[in-house]
Amino acid sequence: MQDVLDKKDFQVIKEGITFPEGIKAAGVKCGIRFNRKDLALIYSEKMANAWGTFTTNKFKAAPLMVTEKNLSLSKGKLQAILINSGIANACTGEKGLKDAWETVNYVSEGLNIDKEYVAVTSTGKIGEFLPMKKIETGLKEAISKLSASGGTKAAKAILTTDTKKKEIAVSFKLNGQEVRIGGMAKGSGMIHPNMATMLAFITSDISIKGKLLQETLQQVVEKSFNMISVDGDMSTNDMVLLMANGLAKNKLIYKKDTTYYKFLKALQYVAEYLAKCIVKDGEGATKMIEVEVQNAVSFGEAKKVAKAVINSPLVKTAVFGKDPNWGRILAAVGYSGAEVMPDKVDLYLKEKIVEDGQPLKFSKQALHKYLKLSNEIKILIDLKMGKERATAWGCDLTYDYVKINTKYN
Amino acid sequence: MQDVLDKKDFQVIKEGITFPEGIKAAGVKCGIRFNRKDLALIYSEKMANAWGTFTTNKFKAAPLMVTEKNLSLSKGKLQAILINSGIANACTGEKGLKDAWETVNYVSEGLNIDKEYVAVTSTGKIGEFLPMKKIETGLKEAISKLSASGGTKAAKAILTTDTKKKEIAVSFKLNGQEVRIGGMAKGSGMIHPNMATMLAFITSDISIKGKLLQETLQQVVEKSFNMISVDGDMSTNDMVLLMANGLAKNKLIYKKDTTYYKFLKALQYVAEYLAKCIVKDGEGATKMIEVEVQNAVSFGEAKKVAKAVINSPLVKTAVFGKDPNWGRILAAVGYSGAEVMPDKVDLYLKEKIVEDGQPLKFSKQALHKYLKLSNEIKILIDLKMGKERATAWGCDLTYDYVKINTKYN
Repeated sequence: MQDVLDKKDFQVIKEGITFPEGIKAAGVKCGIRFNRKDLALIYSEKMANAWGTFTTNKFKAAPLMVTEKNLSLSKGKLQAILINSGIANACTGEKGLKDAWETVNYVSEGLNIDKEYVAVTSTGKIGEFLPMKKIETGLKEAISKLSASGGTKAAKAILTTDTKKKEIAVSFKLNGQEVRIGGMAKGSGMIHPNMATMLAFITSDISIKGKLLQETLQQVVEKSFNMISVDGDMSTNDMVLLMANGLAKNKLIYKKDTTYYKFLKALQYVAEYLAKCIVKDGEGATKMIEVEVQNAVSFGEAKKVAKAVINSPLVKTAVFGKDPNWGRILAAVGYSGAEVMPDKVDLYLKEKIVEDGQPLKFSKQALHKYLKLSNEIKILIDLKMGKERATAWGCDLTYDYVKINTKYN
Repeated sequence: MQDVLDKKDFQVIKEGITFPEGIKAAGVKCGIRFNRKDLALIYSEKMANAWGTFTTNKFKAAPLMVTEKNLSLSKGKLQAILINSGIANACTGEKGLKDAWETVNYVSEGLNIDKEYVAVTSTGKIGEFLPMKKIETGLKEAISKLSASGGTKAAKAILTTDTKKKEIAVSFKLNGQEVRIGGMAKGSGMIHPNMATMLAFITSDISIKGKLLQETLQQVVEKSFNMISVDGDMSTNDMVLLMANGLAKNKLIYKKDTTYYKFLKALQYVAEYLAKCIVKDGEGATKMIEVEVQNAVSFGEAKKVAKAVINSPLVKTAVFGKDPNWGRILAAVGYSGAEVMPDKVDLYLKEKIVEDGQPLKFSKQALHKYLKLSNEIKILIDLKMGKERATAWGCDLTYDYVKINTKYN
């Protein structure tokens, strides 16, 4: 993707969700977690066109059902998003659903906006109920602290086992008018979106038609958040939300013209940046792995191959072990379920090491050094069957992954 | 499955592939591996009805193509099987295929049997060519050492990263006539059959029609070897072969009558025993995990759920961490792709801990103790939707899995 995105088209700023005009945020300690920020609020001064994508896990958490419902009631409009960390409010039955609706009420009353313009979400332990009093009290503090410089505090409040905050912003011009996009996300285990607990929030002040915004989010998520994997597990709480409030005052975008594609590129950059932050901060990860599949007959087939390789524990441990084990990569290509012609496949790891399905002579030592010194390992697979491509991102499988997921109590 | 199989129906003997009448075997050091047995030969004095199931990996290794071809040419008959460990002869192109046919020639000439009655297979490193001279010489020694007590030596010669040999035999009576089944297998990483490098060889002296034998093997493999998983990776070389030479002199079984079902049960026991040996000896495994899914609408749906749970790195690390983390199990059920009703699902780990999708009160300490003291962890998931069931077997994910797959050079 990187070669497709031209950074000259936009300026990259470090922070964050509150960079666009009219977006305020806050992050506070409401007491779910011990002495850590655990409640974030995002607020748009002006009603925003909005859309979301949600986990396909059958055990979808209560707040996601509520937010989906609200997006449908409001026909794709939002003005506020409340996020708590520490408790996921998943597998909590009727009471969990009631609680989620109650948090919507809190936000609606506190900000004086209609209920259907409120999104809520949660991340953390499954099977526990939300401490409603703490959230009600914490929310009041968050509302009082809402500010255009609150993005980083909000970005910190949504983290769980993450070791780093994840935020970004970009700006670009549309016919001389400055337009801004801001985003934040959290990982970091159980990441295999479709959606997988991964949360991402993106705001913009762009003026764009609601229907077009929805289609755009779907497309961008498919090639960013849905292409990352830490461990192949998929959470009950994954969700990406996008709000665009129009305050940039650009001419309304209602079709796929030049200005639209400029926005699409910038949005894709933001989504891909956040998605990569998540895998780089994958539980125990020491290296990011990028798998690019070229010349497949379709994007779907390319995706199957890229996902199989990125999810293979044997490939992941080989990268951790700094071993250019091309056999494990080919084996994953072979069981991916995609149509491949074994005696056509080329494989590149820094250089071409497999041609037509058979290993070339290469310096194992040089590749070992590449794997040792690079923090971003690129695997390129050329299927030589068609013209489509897909890129997936993941991370290595390490002792620390086992440790984090064994000794978390 | 265990409750379905009644061990009273047959006697269990520890060893092995040569237990049936007229089956001889040998295991020798031919020099592919350093000072370890690496070449095994199985020989039936009488022509046997035979069948095989093979990896679905697109990068199918050369010897598997050769063996599939021979089973087709001979219309399901075999008299000898040659297995080498150390080199897989996979991703070796034209030359690899030629080499595999050449090993068939060696066996054909050495044992004086027609070529199409010879099966060959390999396990070990991908992308390297077989050392033909060593195999030719080693085979001569193996032929000279073929004996009815050579089963254990053969079982040792096929191992790679396995820590234990895997063999079993059973005997039972059909109308007063004793019938025997023997088997051996190797694991232990890259195990996720469909087939996944897992090799299993089963012999019997039963007299059964070829067509019926083929159907039976397919069915038995589906509920044994295809239900195990160590890491979800699938090898280029997986294969199960079955030979039945008729020397037990029972009345030929040609349809699914009472005697057939007695054989089916015994064969299922042998296959399941070997499959479990493989996961128990999974790379770095400290515990076997059994996932049984009950009351699904179909075997296929039950299998999807059982496989998703057994493959989940988060469930596997939780078991290693001795944590009754039911939330991770439900999350895997939810993303399995199977139709499930979240608010109907019950979950048992020693006792019922989830009812209708929500956690019950249970002693975390007692379950921690169960997970600590048991070597075989049973997870039972009741979908309460239909009447079908499936059982899958796997193992925990440990520091040693990462170690073995990182530092194997």
